[in-house]
Amino acid sequence: MHLRAKPWASAWLTEHSDIVIDQKQATEQIGKWQMLFDQKNPIHVEIGSGKGQFILGMALAHPEINYIGMEIQETAIAIAARKSFEQVGKLPNLRYIYGNGNGVETYFEKAEVAKLYLNFSDPWPKARHESRRLTYKSFLKSYEAILPEKGEVEFKTDNRHLFEYSMVSFVNYGMRWSTNDYSLDLHQDDEKVLGNIETEYEQKFMAKGQPIYKIKAHF
Amino acid sequence: MHLRAKPWASAWLTEHSDIVIDQKQATEQIGKWQMLFDQKNPIHVEIGSGKGQFILGMALAHPEINYIGMEIQETAIAIAARKSFEQVGKLPNLRYIYGNGNGVETYFEKAEVAKLYLNFSDPWPKARHESRRLTYKSFLKSYEAILPEKGEVEFKTDNRHLFEYSMVSFVNYGMRWSTNDYSLDLHQDDEKVLGNIETEYEQKFMAKGQPIYKIKAHF
Repeated sequence: MHLRAKPWASAWLTEHSDIVIDQKQATEQIGKWQMLFDQKNPIHVEIGSGKGQFILGMALAHPEINYIGMEIQETAIAIAARKSFEQVGKLPNLRYIYGNGNGVETYFEKAEVAKLYLNFSDPWPKARHESRRLTYKSFLKSYEAILPEKGEVEFKTDNRHLFEYSMVSFVNYGMRWSTNDYSLDLHQDDEKVLGNIETEYEQKFMAKGQPIYKIKAHF
Repeated sequence: MHLRAKPWASAWLTEHSDIVIDQKQATEQIGKWQMLFDQKNPIHVEIGSGKGQFILGMALAHPEINYIGMEIQETAIAIAARKSFEQVGKLPNLRYIYGNGNGVETYFEKAEVAKLYLNFSDPWPKARHESRRLTYKSFLKSYEAILPEKGEVEFKTDNRHLFEYSMVSFVNYGMRWSTNDYSLDLHQDDEKVLGNIETEYEQKFMAKGQPIYKIKAHF
């Protein structure tokens, strides 16, 4: 996702540092994330939350979960956080990190995050960029480091090549999943799509009739 | 695949027992399959060879491999064997077994088969029929018993649910594969489809624009 820079983004983020935590703040928050939410609840993190439709939808649908959307693109995170702030105010269970997925161990301690979401991540199709894919083994290692034993990573994408790559990466890392947590055409699966919150990309690719691939794998 | 019984099938099979081996003969052939071929070469077996287009295509394309098509439906195997016999005579590198996939350990000894193919197997969609699916764990155990160390199973299907099931079954059994040996839309993958021999089903579902799923997994 490449967005045109918004002149207001940087200042907005600075003014709303209670909602959007920057990288420096995030490293200082390690072990203490529950303090930023109104209630103590399991924390679910989306890495690469983009313009934030998914994480906002989840936060509204599940008040019993505390959500964090993490995004490295300043414009995207500013759009996401401002849109949600203007629509529904400061939610008790939704925060953002303006930061990088490969820094997660510096933000969270072991088992501080109950579950991770990856949605429509950049496919980085070139072989030499393999290590930038969010399902590359070094990322999996980072995810494992902040999740509990058998912690889950839920992943959706329209990109067949990234999905094929990711499944092999999961398997080689020793991750497992069940048939119920796995669909090669999510929106044709009445049972598996129940409760699904759509991302912006998902709606775009669904409209084209392309399959959405989904897997919930655990360590 | 449900075919109307052909009155000529049974007699034709009896008359061509040098081409189509029955179950009893197959158990007696254990450890001695190379004797049935003109040349000693690796043996590749297709379980559920149906009307035989794939295994005939492979045998013609790869004279350096000895092929066996195994099929439990009398009408199907008779059609397959007769068609190939009438088109190209008795091939030096193609035989059939009129027998059942779950009997493979009684037909072959360890490593007597170099590679297995499963193509468009019956999906057995009902949960209570899970154990009949050719990728159920008991079948995987049988396949492992006749393949060499790290032996390969190559599997194609149009059936998404069977494919999802099978991948979980492979993973849980400890099987592995690489991204190169795995496609969620085979005929859109210029590199992965190279050398692919199409089955009757494959052509039918391709014509409808449905994706063909393929995986080559190894133990």
